[in-house]
Amino acid sequence: MAAEGDLEALAAARPLLTDLYQVTMALGYWRAGRARDAAEFELFFRRCPFGGAFALFAGLRDCVRFLRAFRLRDADVRFLASALPPDTDPAFFEHLRALDCSGVTVRALPEGSLAFPGVPLLQVSGPLLVVQLLETPLLCLVGYASLVATSAARLRLIAGPEKRLMEMGLRRAQGPDGGLTASTYSYLGGFDSSSNVLAGQLRGVPVTGTLAHSFVTSFSGSEVPPDPMLAPAAGEGPGVDLAASAKVWLARVCAHLELGVQEPHPGERAAFVAYALAFPRAFQGLLDSYSVRRSGLPNFLAVALALAELGYRAVGVRLDSGDLLQQAREVREVLQTTAAHFQVPWLERLCITVSNNVDEEALARLAQEGSEVNVVGIGTSVVTCPQQPSLGCVYKLVSVGGQPRMKLTEDPEKQTLPGSKAAFRLLGADGALLSDVLQLVEEPPPQAGQELRVWPRGAREPCTVTPAQVEPLLQLWVQKGQLCQPLPSLAESRAFAQLSLSRLGLAHRWLHGPELYQVALSEKLQALVDSLSARGSP
Amino acid sequence: MAAEGDLEALAAARPLLTDLYQVTMALGYWRAGRARDAAEFELFFRRCPFGGAFALFAGLRDCVRFLRAFRLRDADVRFLASALPPDTDPAFFEHLRALDCSGVTVRALPEGSLAFPGVPLLQVSGPLLVVQLLETPLLCLVGYASLVATSAARLRLIAGPEKRLMEMGLRRAQGPDGGLTASTYSYLGGFDSSSNVLAGQLRGVPVTGTLAHSFVTSFSGSEVPPDPMLAPAAGEGPGVDLAASAKVWLARVCAHLELGVQEPHPGERAAFVAYALAFPRAFQGLLDSYSVRRSGLPNFLAVALALAELGYRAVGVRLDSGDLLQQAREVREVLQTTAAHFQVPWLERLCITVSNNVDEEALARLAQEGSEVNVVGIGTSVVTCPQQPSLGCVYKLVSVGGQPRMKLTEDPEKQTLPGSKAAFRLLGADGALLSDVLQLVEEPPPQAGQELRVWPRGAREPCTVTPAQVEPLLQLWVQKGQLCQPLPSLAESRAFAQLSLSRLGLAHRWLHGPELYQVALSEKLQALVDSLSARGSP
Repeated sequence: MAAEGDLEALAAARPLLTDLYQVTMALGYWRAGRARDAAEFELFFRRCPFGGAFALFAGLRDCVRFLRAFRLRDADVRFLASALPPDTDPAFFEHLRALDCSGVTVRALPEGSLAFPGVPLLQVSGPLLVVQLLETPLLCLVGYASLVATSAARLRLIAGPEKRLMEMGLRRAQGPDGGLTASTYSYLGGFDSSSNVLAGQLRGVPVTGTLAHSFVTSFSGSEVPPDPMLAPAAGEGPGVDLAASAKVWLARVCAHLELGVQEPHPGERAAFVAYALAFPRAFQGLLDSYSVRRSGLPNFLAVALALAELGYRAVGVRLDSGDLLQQAREVREVLQTTAAHFQVPWLERLCITVSNNVDEEALARLAQEGSEVNVVGIGTSVVTCPQQPSLGCVYKLVSVGGQPRMKLTEDPEKQTLPGSKAAFRLLGADGALLSDVLQLVEEPPPQAGQELRVWPRGAREPCTVTPAQVEPLLQLWVQKGQLCQPLPSLAESRAFAQLSLSRLGLAHRWLHGPELYQVALSEKLQALVDSLSARGSP
Repeated sequence: MAAEGDLEALAAARPLLTDLYQVTMALGYWRAGRARDAAEFELFFRRCPFGGAFALFAGLRDCVRFLRAFRLRDADVRFLASALPPDTDPAFFEHLRALDCSGVTVRALPEGSLAFPGVPLLQVSGPLLVVQLLETPLLCLVGYASLVATSAARLRLIAGPEKRLMEMGLRRAQGPDGGLTASTYSYLGGFDSSSNVLAGQLRGVPVTGTLAHSFVTSFSGSEVPPDPMLAPAAGEGPGVDLAASAKVWLARVCAHLELGVQEPHPGERAAFVAYALAFPRAFQGLLDSYSVRRSGLPNFLAVALALAELGYRAVGVRLDSGDLLQQAREVREVLQTTAAHFQVPWLERLCITVSNNVDEEALARLAQEGSEVNVVGIGTSVVTCPQQPSLGCVYKLVSVGGQPRMKLTEDPEKQTLPGSKAAFRLLGADGALLSDVLQLVEEPPPQAGQELRVWPRGAREPCTVTPAQVEPLLQLWVQKGQLCQPLPSLAESRAFAQLSLSRLGLAHRWLHGPELYQVALSEKLQALVDSLSARGSP
C-alpha cells in the first residue's frame, strides 16, 4: 500500500493548497529579513459547534502527513512566480524551493480528545515564514474533521450505545475528499461503519451496504437468471431453483398475511432472488420500492423463507421512506407473526435498518424506548452538518522571537490570547472534568491537591479550584519535522473519544442549552492579557 | 502540466470512491446475468436550493475526467474481494478488472446552464453494472459543484455587476478537495477571484490576496529590515529609507487627522513598511489589527504617502471586523480629506475590501446604494452554503433493456419520471424563458410557433404554450466513452452562466419567495407516468 499512501499524500498535501496571502506575506517576511524568526501559532476554535458545550478534536494524522510531505515542486514555485510581481527578487524563489518543515514542531491534543473554546488544538512553532504558510492547509485539515467527529459524537449520544450508526453521505459531500474525510471522522466520532468503500480501503473504516431502489426497479420479473440454482448452506444435497421456491413461499406468505398473491411486485421479487443468489448468507431486502406492506415485505419473506429452507439466514431489511419508526414497528410485528407461523424463530430478530434524511431530531425519535430500529443510516446530516457547517477554527500568532503577540481588533471576541502556553485539564476525585487551564509555558504545572487561583474566561473575578488530578493536554507529536511518537490508529482514537466523552459531566453533554465547561487562565496569563490590552498590544 | 493532470485525475477519480452497495448490487446484476443490460440513469435534483427558483449546473468537467479515467486497479479489486463474501465467484472479479467506461454515453446540460427540478442534469447510459457503479461518484461530483455555483450566482445577483467578489473559504471547506471545488465553482457562478492558490494552478481561477493579522502582529516595530531602501518607481534617482520616510509622513498624517503621533502602533507600521518593500506597486493595508481609526488608517496613509513620494500608488485597504459598511464610509471620508489635503487625488479612490462572515444578508447591506465597499471577501458562506449545505441530487434508473422504469415508494415526492427522455427549453419572442419540457426521446421535438399541450409538474390539468424559440437542453458529451465535443473552459462556462441568468424572468430570480419556473411533461410522458403508477410500475 506504499504507492497508495504516496498518492494519497500527494493528493491531499499540496503546499499550494493555501491562500495567496500566505505567499504574499511570505515575501513580506523574507524581504524584512524575518523568514527564520522563531514563531508560534495556535489553532483553536472560539465557540463549540451546534450549540453544544464540547467538540472532539480530529485531523491530526492528516496534518502530520501534510507537514512531513511539505515541499514546493518546481511547477509550484513557477506558478507562484507568475502570481507575484514580475520584479520579485529571484532569491525569494530559491528560498521557497528549499523550504520544508524540518524546522517545525507541533504539539497537539491527541485525536479524539474533548476540546473546548480557546484551548489550542495545535501549537505550531518554527520559522515564521513556513509556519505562516501552513495556516490555511492546517485549518482546512482540522476544521472539518473536528466538526464531523463532533457531529457524529452528538448523534452517538442521541442513539445510545446499542443502535448501530452507518454513515452514507458520500454523495452529499463537498467533492471526493470531503466524502473521505466525512467517512473517516464520523467513524472516529462514534459511528460504526460507512458506505464509502475508499474510506475502507485507505483508512480502515468498516464498510457496509446493501442495495438501492435502482437494483429493485431494474427487474421486471421476466428476466431469466443464467443459473437460478442455489446449493444448501451446508453444502450437501441437491440445489434448488430459488426463484421457483420463492414463488411457492410467496403463496404461503400471502395466505398468512391475507394478501392477494398477485399484489407483490414480480420485478421486486426477481431482484430479491438475484440478490439472494449473490449473497445467500447475507440476504437483505430494501422494502419500499413499491409498497412496504403489500409488496416489499411479502416478497422479502418469500425469499428469506426459501433461503431458510436451504439453511441460510437472511440478515435484515431496510426502509428508506415514509414514517420510519411506525413502519419499523409494523415490520417487526409481521416478522414476529411470520416467525411464529412458519416456526423460524430467528426471523423475528432480523435487523431493521432505516434511512432517509435522518438528523438529530429524527434520530431521537428513532432511538426512543420501544423502537424496533436496529441500524440507522445517516448521510447529509452528518456529512454537511447543516446546523453549523463550519467549526470556524482560527490560527493565531501567539509569539515571535520569544515575545508574546496579541491581536486586539475592532471586535473583542476576535482578540487572541498571547504567549507560548501550556494547557492542563483539572479533574475531581471521581475523575470528572472540572476545568481546563491555560497558562504560560514557563509557569510550573498545577499540582493535584493544591488550590489554584484562576480566571475563568470572560469572568471579572478569579476563582479557586483544587484538582484531585491534573492532566497535561498538549503532547509533542512532531519535533523539528520528525514524528516523535506513533500516532494512534483510527480505531484507537475512536475508543479514546468515547472514553473522553464518558468523563464529561452530564450537564456539559446536553445537546441543547448545556452547562458550559470552564476554561480558565492562570493569573500570570490573565495579567499578560491585561497588560497587552492596556498598552494596545506589544 | 501533464503530470499534474494525471495526479489530479488519480486523486479525484478513484472508482472506489463509491458506496459499498453499488458493489454488492454489481455482484447481484452479474449473478443475474444482467451486467451488460442496456440501462439509463438520470441525475437531477428535486427542489431548487436556498428557497430560490433556479440552480446552476456545474461539475460536468469533473464527471468526464472521472469517467475517462475509470478503471479498477488490482489493489482495488483485492480490496473489494475482502469486502464481499469469501465464496464470491472469482469470475466476478475478472469482470471488474476488465471494467471501464468505454460503453458509457453521457448527455448533459452545458456547465453553467440554468437548471430546474426534475430536468436531468446528466443522462448516463450504458451497461447496467457500470452505470450503477457510477452513481455515487457522479452525485458527489455534481451536487456540491452545482450548489456552490448556485450560491455564488445568488451572491452575484445581490452584489450587482460592479462589486468584486472574492472567494476565501478554503480554510472552512470539507478538506482539500472541498476547497478546490468551492474555489472553482464559485468562480463559475460569478465570483471574480479566489484566495486558493491551487485553484489558480490547477483550474486557472484568478487568485488574489493581501495580508493577515498575523503578519501585522508579528512586528513590534523594533525590527531592522536588512535593506530598508526603496528605489523610485521610475527607476531613476536615489533610493529612500521607506521606514524613515513613513515616520516623517506619519507626523503629517497625524496632524491632519488630529491624532497623537504616538497613537498608531509602531509594529503595525513596521509591518506595512515591510509589505510595501515587498510590494511597492501593490501595497495594501489590513487596518483592524489594533484600531482602524487610531492606528491602522494613519499607519497605512503614512506608508502610502511615503510610497507616493517615490511615484508608487497604493492599491487598497482591507477591513475584517466591526461594522464594515460604516467603517468603509469613514475610511473613504478620511481617504478623501487626506487626498485633498496632500494633493494626491488618486488616494481617494483606493479600493476598500471587506470581509468577516459575510452572508447573503450582510452582502445586501454592503451592496446598498452609497456603499463605499469595492471588494467583498466571502468564505464560510459560499463554501459551506449554510442555508442548505446539500443540493440533494439523485440518480435514478429510468430505463433498462429499452423498457421504462419507475420508483413509486412510500413517499410521492420520491417518485421518479420513467423512460428515456429529451428536454427542451421554450422561449418567448423576447428571448425570455417560458418553460422546460420533458418528453419521451422518441417524440418529435416541439416546434417554434406551434401550440403545445403539456402537463406542468404537479398540476391536475394540462395547459398550452406556444414557444417562439425552442432549445434542446441536453447535449451529447461522451459517446461510448469518447469525448465528442470539447468541453468549454471554466471562464467560458462562467460567461455562459451569467448570460443564462440574464434571460431568466426577474420574478424567477428573486432570492426569497420567487415565482417558480415551470417544468412540464409532454402528454405522452404524463400518460406513461399515469399508466405505470396505476399498474404499480412495470
